[in-house]
Amino acid sequence: MDEVRIIEIKKSIFEDNDRDADRLRSELKEKGVFLLNLMSSPGSGKTTTLINVINLLKENIRIAVMEADIDSDVDARKIKEATGIETIQLHTGGMCHLDAEMTRQGLENLNLKETDLAILENVGNLVCPAEFDTGSCCNVMILSVPEGHDKPLKYPLMFSICDVVLINKIDVAPYFDFDMDECVRNIHSRNPKAEVMPICARTGEGVQAFTDWLLTAVSEWKNNKTK
Amino acid sequence: MDEVRIIEIKKSIFEDNDRDADRLRSELKEKGVFLLNLMSSPGSGKTTTLINVINLLKENIRIAVMEADIDSDVDARKIKEATGIETIQLHTGGMCHLDAEMTRQGLENLNLKETDLAILENVGNLVCPAEFDTGSCCNVMILSVPEGHDKPLKYPLMFSICDVVLINKIDVAPYFDFDMDECVRNIHSRNPKAEVMPICARTGEGVQAFTDWLLTAVSEWKNNKTK
Repeated sequence: MDEVRIIEIKKSIFEDNDRDADRLRSELKEKGVFLLNLMSSPGSGKTTTLINVINLLKENIRIAVMEADIDSDVDARKIKEATGIETIQLHTGGMCHLDAEMTRQGLENLNLKETDLAILENVGNLVCPAEFDTGSCCNVMILSVPEGHDKPLKYPLMFSICDVVLINKIDVAPYFDFDMDECVRNIHSRNPKAEVMPICARTGEGVQAFTDWLLTAVSEWKNNKTK
Repeated sequence: MDEVRIIEIKKSIFEDNDRDADRLRSELKEKGVFLLNLMSSPGSGKTTTLINVINLLKENIRIAVMEADIDSDVDARKIKEATGIETIQLHTGGMCHLDAEMTRQGLENLNLKETDLAILENVGNLVCPAEFDTGSCCNVMILSVPEGHDKPLKYPLMFSICDVVLINKIDVAPYFDFDMDECVRNIHSRNPKAEVMPICARTGEGVQAFTDWLLTAVSEWKNNKTK
């Protein structure tokens, strides 16, 4: 149960990542697979959030996970143990992000015929992953309370490309100088369309709202209502 | 008091960063300036730690600060307001790290004749800044408790190049699943020589031990005892 496949990802040979990402998205559309790209700083709670989301959704839709990491397979093992679903580890060999071709290498190792929702947990980094379209159908990022409400001002690109911003670790907000209203204002100053959802991945608080959003997004994608 | 100079850093034209970094270190040696490169994830507490360190040291040695950021001048203003010392903001224009040439562009805007210790607050990122020698005399990183004790396993290069790892936000440890002994073991598995110092930048706890270490390092550098 605790063994996971580890895929060593090769650096992309394609120069035009945007074109390649659009091609990958079209292929996923044909296959009826929704690809979610999840990003955050190191330690914001991506893996714990995913475990909650998967356990809420796995009876409704078929899910597979790709855990990208520079080294180690800590997260892939955690997800597989806690959810029982198909999980592979992508080793980026020091690379700070994934692009569309690297994501494709991961997807080729999943059983896409049996998958409605493929989740990519990107490398923990607020800078580089924002610069490369992975071919995903939606981008979600997690900002955790201890990181501070000023982060949208300091990492503007990341906040501007995300459909959803999950604000995690709200249970510890009393111990930090964190202003939720200010945080939401900072996010919307970068991206007025971003959905902002406060959660506590540790206790599961607020996660249902996000899984509802995600279930609708996957269903619309499969029913051809969105691009 | 709250106005800071903002320097737009150009991308480096040098291909051999390691050679350029060694050259910068030699020049700093001749000038008697110690360059500290401070790295961490976004929101780990670099700026708050620096304010504490500077206020403890500024009567003993002459300090100047370069705050690197993709955008905004939030941190440079904070440091200048809280310490009164010379602080400039380096805008990296989206770049995820600083290399030696970019650091040199920042140093050229400081009054090095009046500086014993120049501090570079690098871009918040555990991946890319570890790959580029800035020409610094020592590398210090901050890992904060909310990020988790497994980070040395997931970002091995960053931990392997640091002389000191400050473990920040120890005041909130009771609210997180953080194992200090395991953390220290993980750090030393990557880098047996790393000095590990627990601190709380918000209250100042533990910061004196680091400033003592730093004062010794600066003094040895100026007295030619180390490289």
